[in-house]
Amino acid sequence: MSSKLKVGILGATGAVGQRFISLLDNHPWFEVEVLAASERSSGKKYADAANWILKGDIPEYARDLKVVGAEPKDCGKVDLVFSALPSAIAAETERKFLDAGYFISSNSASFRMHSDVPLVIPEVNPEHLKLLETQKWKGRIVTNPNCSAIQLVIALKPLQDKFGLEKVSVTTMQALSGAGYPGVPSLAIISNVIPYIENEEEKIETEPLKILGKLDGNKVKDETFAISASCNRVAVQDGHFESVSVKLKKPATVHEIEKCLSEFRGAPQELKLPTAPEKPIIVRKEKDRPQPSKDLADMAIVVGRVREDKVLGFKFNVLGHNTIRGAAGAAVLNAELLKAKGYL
Amino acid sequence: MSSKLKVGILGATGAVGQRFISLLDNHPWFEVEVLAASERSSGKKYADAANWILKGDIPEYARDLKVVGAEPKDCGKVDLVFSALPSAIAAETERKFLDAGYFISSNSASFRMHSDVPLVIPEVNPEHLKLLETQKWKGRIVTNPNCSAIQLVIALKPLQDKFGLEKVSVTTMQALSGAGYPGVPSLAIISNVIPYIENEEEKIETEPLKILGKLDGNKVKDETFAISASCNRVAVQDGHFESVSVKLKKPATVHEIEKCLSEFRGAPQELKLPTAPEKPIIVRKEKDRPQPSKDLADMAIVVGRVREDKVLGFKFNVLGHNTIRGAAGAAVLNAELLKAKGYL
Amino acid sequence: MSSKLKVGILGATGAVGQRFISLLDNHPWFEVEVLAASERSSGKKYADAANWILKGDIPEYARDLKVVGAEPKDCGKVDLVFSALPSAIAAETERKFLDAGYFISSNSASFRMHSDVPLVIPEVNPEHLKLLETQKWKGRIVTNPNCSAIQLVIALKPLQDKFGLEKVSVTTMQALSGAGYPGVPSLAIISNVIPYIENEEEKIETEPLKILGKLDGNKVKDETFAISASCNRVAVQDGHFESVSVKLKKPATVHEIEKCLSEFRGAPQELKLPTAPEKPIIVRKEKDRPQPSKDLADMAIVVGRVREDKVLGFKFNVLGHNTIRGAAGAAVLNAELLKAKGYL
Amino acid sequence: MSSKLKVGILGATGAVGQRFISLLDNHPWFEVEVLAASERSSGKKYADAANWILKGDIPEYARDLKVVGAEPKDCGKVDLVFSALPSAIAAETERKFLDAGYFISSNSASFRMHSDVPLVIPEVNPEHLKLLETQKWKGRIVTNPNCSAIQLVIALKPLQDKFGLEKVSVTTMQALSGAGYPGVPSLAIISNVIPYIENEEEKIETEPLKILGKLDGNKVKDETFAISASCNRVAVQDGHFESVSVKLKKPATVHEIEKCLSEFRGAPQELKLPTAPEKPIIVRKEKDRPQPSKDLADMAIVVGRVREDKVLGFKFNVLGHNTIRGAAGAAVLNAELLKAKGYL
Repeated sequence: MSSKLKVGILGATGAVGQRFISLLDNHPWFEVEVLAASERSSGKKYADAANWILKGDIPEYARDLKVVGAEPKDCGKVDLVFSALPSAIAAETERKFLDAGYFISSNSASFRMHSDVPLVIPEVNPEHLKLLETQKWKGRIVTNPNCSAIQLVIALKPLQDKFGLEKVSVTTMQALSGAGYPGVPSLAIISNVIPYIENEEEKIETEPLKILGKLDGNKVKDETFAISASCNRVAVQDGHFESVSVKLKKPATVHEIEKCLSEFRGAPQELKLPTAPEKPIIVRKEKDRPQPSKDLADMAIVVGRVREDKVLGFKFNVLGHNTIRGAAGAAVLNAELLKAKGYL
Repeated sequence: MSSKLKVGILGATGAVGQRFISLLDNHPWFEVEVLAASERSSGKKYADAANWILKGDIPEYARDLKVVGAEPKDCGKVDLVFSALPSAIAAETERKFLDAGYFISSNSASFRMHSDVPLVIPEVNPEHLKLLETQKWKGRIVTNPNCSAIQLVIALKPLQDKFGLEKVSVTTMQALSGAGYPGVPSLAIISNVIPYIENEEEKIETEPLKILGKLDGNKVKDETFAISASCNRVAVQDGHFESVSVKLKKPATVHEIEKCLSEFRGAPQELKLPTAPEKPIIVRKEKDRPQPSKDLADMAIVVGRVREDKVLGFKFNVLGHNTIRGAAGAAVLNAELLKAKGYL
Repeated sequence: MSSKLKVGILGATGAVGQRFISLLDNHPWFEVEVLAASERSSGKKYADAANWILKGDIPEYARDLKVVGAEPKDCGKVDLVFSALPSAIAAETERKFLDAGYFISSNSASFRMHSDVPLVIPEVNPEHLKLLETQKWKGRIVTNPNCSAIQLVIALKPLQDKFGLEKVSVTTMQALSGAGYPGVPSLAIISNVIPYIENEEEKIETEPLKILGKLDGNKVKDETFAISASCNRVAVQDGHFESVSVKLKKPATVHEIEKCLSEFRGAPQELKLPTAPEKPIIVRKEKDRPQPSKDLADMAIVVGRVREDKVLGFKFNVLGHNTIRGAAGAAVLNAELLKAKGYL
Repeated sequence: MSSKLKVGILGATGAVGQRFISLLDNHPWFEVEVLAASERSSGKKYADAANWILKGDIPEYARDLKVVGAEPKDCGKVDLVFSALPSAIAAETERKFLDAGYFISSNSASFRMHSDVPLVIPEVNPEHLKLLETQKWKGRIVTNPNCSAIQLVIALKPLQDKFGLEKVSVTTMQALSGAGYPGVPSLAIISNVIPYIENEEEKIETEPLKILGKLDGNKVKDETFAISASCNRVAVQDGHFESVSVKLKKPATVHEIEKCLSEFRGAPQELKLPTAPEKPIIVRKEKDRPQPSKDLADMAIVVGRVREDKVLGFKFNVLGHNTIRGAAGAAVLNAELLKAKGYL
């Protein structure tokens, strides 16, 4: 135990906070010592403070931990805090923790697009961690992208490297768990599609350009290809599904694309990070897959139906677990990368 | 009564057949005299033969009608038959009815792409009925498009007329009722998206080009712009939802597009056909509409979220009732057009 | 217009409030002049204040009405207010309106079990209105029962009259709309049953005994038979479904029970109240009905599968529309009864 | 391997057949050598013959096994066959296998109520295996109860032993997977409850009386208390939920009932059978549990909300996994009991 890094979770009672607690159960490198949440929860045992919504029971280690306030003064000395703070308060709270010298691996959007904050998917742009060295706060912060952007970018990265990307158009069908808890009212989604998710299209249209951007000295030079996103909520518990069309710069075949996706590996695989999937991209060749209820993986994304597209050239489907690969798991993998690279 | 045209319904017990029965209840021009179905149902009262799946009870007029076989010899003398035959037998059975001299308004795909068969949406291409004059059978047949294609083409038509179409990309989220009954197993769709519907993408990528084609003498010259379709099934009872992106030939603004869609009218409105919607296209301006569970109309389609698209120029959502505007209602409106134009 | 009674709606922006607005559109006796809601909505046009969740658009008459606070001073002079107030504030607010001299038809639970407050279903116990004469406030209040209790009691009333009731056991499967809006989170109910609804079992086990009680002078003497209720939430939009077993005092047959339910009529039918269903109870004889998605009526309840029960004698299913017959429609029917009986 | 018993699965491609394949993957005592299904599948590799509906992929061992016909001549020499045959053909096919000398552990209903066929839940009535010795066929057959009956009887057994049972009333909310595949059409269940499952109420009202019956020499003397069952289908993927009321013969308290259920153990626990749950009954004390989406276990049932019932005395909820504890897992546990008791 004593050799593990001590970590805290900000926003520990919410939907993403619960995923952090679940993923960090028995983690080989990290030991959760601090669970922080809103004042309402502060002082209670975690089991009393949280309305646990995941399948199965609260991990033993967390049940009796006393929840503290999401303030630096309450969180004591830890090596890293994971932030699952709600967007309304994330910017201000994370800023306080930075000023107090904390190292943050954040799933919140507030700092993602700051020029000196790395927006990292370890398989895609681990070298962006170099931005950490330019940060002026007493603490440091690394962020992971929006849930829909992560799975999209993982699929785009090998295509960019091999064929070059010119245009990307994506229509999403996003899971309910992406909206947190209580999130989407049942009456709003039963037998329905909701064609709007606040700020989501903007994030998908901008975050990938930073992530896929090139590190140039101490700066990231954003990519400039066009992305169009149309976002929809559907009655699926977990698993964002994306219908993606791409225009590539170089000629390609369906087979070459499938091969290039399937063979893709990145830093987490080379470094054997504890949370890394064996293969970041699982390629399925059946005509009707992947499907959220059947094919959802934890940290790997699933690509299927790669085929020609009469408008942009090629199209395919992408499925990813939005609260694991797309949120808590992303931040944990970032933290593992930080440690493997010596930042922690 | 005696002045009404006598009509029959082929495939009367299925999901689309039931919609025909419902829509033709108290129809001012048509009187249903013949309900034809498979041998299994033949000889039974309709109420005993059909597993009625629509809300409410079977219309009185149909309850006690005796179901006959779907053979010309069993159907006697009627002015028109509506075809809701399943695709497996539609081609052969419709051919028999044509050889026997029947006039058919068909919702089936079998004859849609034949060069001498009009594929008609009355608001879009009523002039294509002229193809009827080139048919060589003893009978005549007019067809309506695939459910997803109809609502797409209604939205595209005013854009084509005013701005010209260069490229169209559509991702569909289609309702369960589009698969008929029993159709999609509940276990297959609960908390899921199924990213495949047999032959659907092919239909959406080809049918609109014929419908939007120009009548040139006795032939239709297909349009040639590129369409890409990605089709998905979602857990929605009724109402196909489409996320559409278009590249236009001429410059446009969001406001001009909304205006052009909203002001669109066609033959059914001019001719005041009984089943015609007052406006074929309802344009909504809220940020999160249309939604299947809230905004579904019967014969009008609903367009919303018209906005710019970084890849193709503009994008918007289209919602239509797949078994009314997209199937039975489409064939009834075609029949009304036939009568108004003197073909019946 | 001028001859109609002027009414207000307290809690007009909530789910039940919206049903009131919808049901009172073009009501022949009542004219809505006041829409009252929480301070947050006060001062806005109704269309801006309400997140309209019902199918279709807000009735014209209500769109531009300015919402006022739920305080007597804000509501001016009306002949009656309907209360759709949330339970947390209903008791206090209704009390203020009573002190200020208002006549209230309330759907809230706060005053239902007061000994001088009539808890009325017009088909069942119209004579209980006599309790109004014993009320000590400056105003008057009549209440309708809990949604699940209403449909149960309508089914029980004819059985009590003809056979006598000894024991009643009911297991409910209740619709999402019964929890209001936002109500049940979608993540909580997808592919799930929630076996608990706060205070619901208590209401079902007590309210029917008051409603079915005998008026004795100026008091109601509660019935005393045993009722057991087990309440569950299921993924149904509208329509509470109940599995009911009864022990009767006198011998009966399935046929006699069906006949007795089907022939039941009450005051609303005799008085031809505007909102009264033609028959309060629709009896279905199919083996698998009624079903919420197929058989839901507005103001009539639907009973099916009447059959023998090895434990209590007989069992059957009851379906009712929880926000119409079970809430707003119930209060409107009560108000109609008040007027027909001369209380208004 | 060689020391494992060789087993076959009849009806291997269906929903329950798939569960058998999944549960027998790496089973310590049984080795699947034969997968039998209808003629249509015969001769194909299992992966080609089956439409795999379970989450995850087909276990490796089964993928390439060649499917054979469900006839004794095709199945060769195995120590036991599990029967997941559809009810339409189970009786005749199982009879053939009995005549051919096979030992069958059947999940089908056909032989359950035969007086010389044990209907066994290993925790409840392992001694009923003695009936095997009275069977006149060349082979032998043991059966497990209907899915809804199993979980009910496991909960009833400790109550019968400690307090005696006088009356039992149960209303079920059953999962979609209980209807097999394709099973319930999605259009039939979306936003709905279906209050009828063919033959289900009869099974629940009779099977428990045999299972709880006393072995008297070579015969089972059925229990005689009254059971009433009302069965409903709800939109839940896996997990039958039951609302149960009981009248006990002796006085009890809620606490005593919870304790008696929680402490219950049976032969599988004593014999440490591989598939046995540690505790057959998990008792939950939260006010709103168990819930299918949160609390479903594989082989244990979950009981919650034990409380007083004004009509029968006590009531509680029971949740069980209908295709594991209620079907394939039940038959596997029976087979393990057979081996442990020396019958295999």
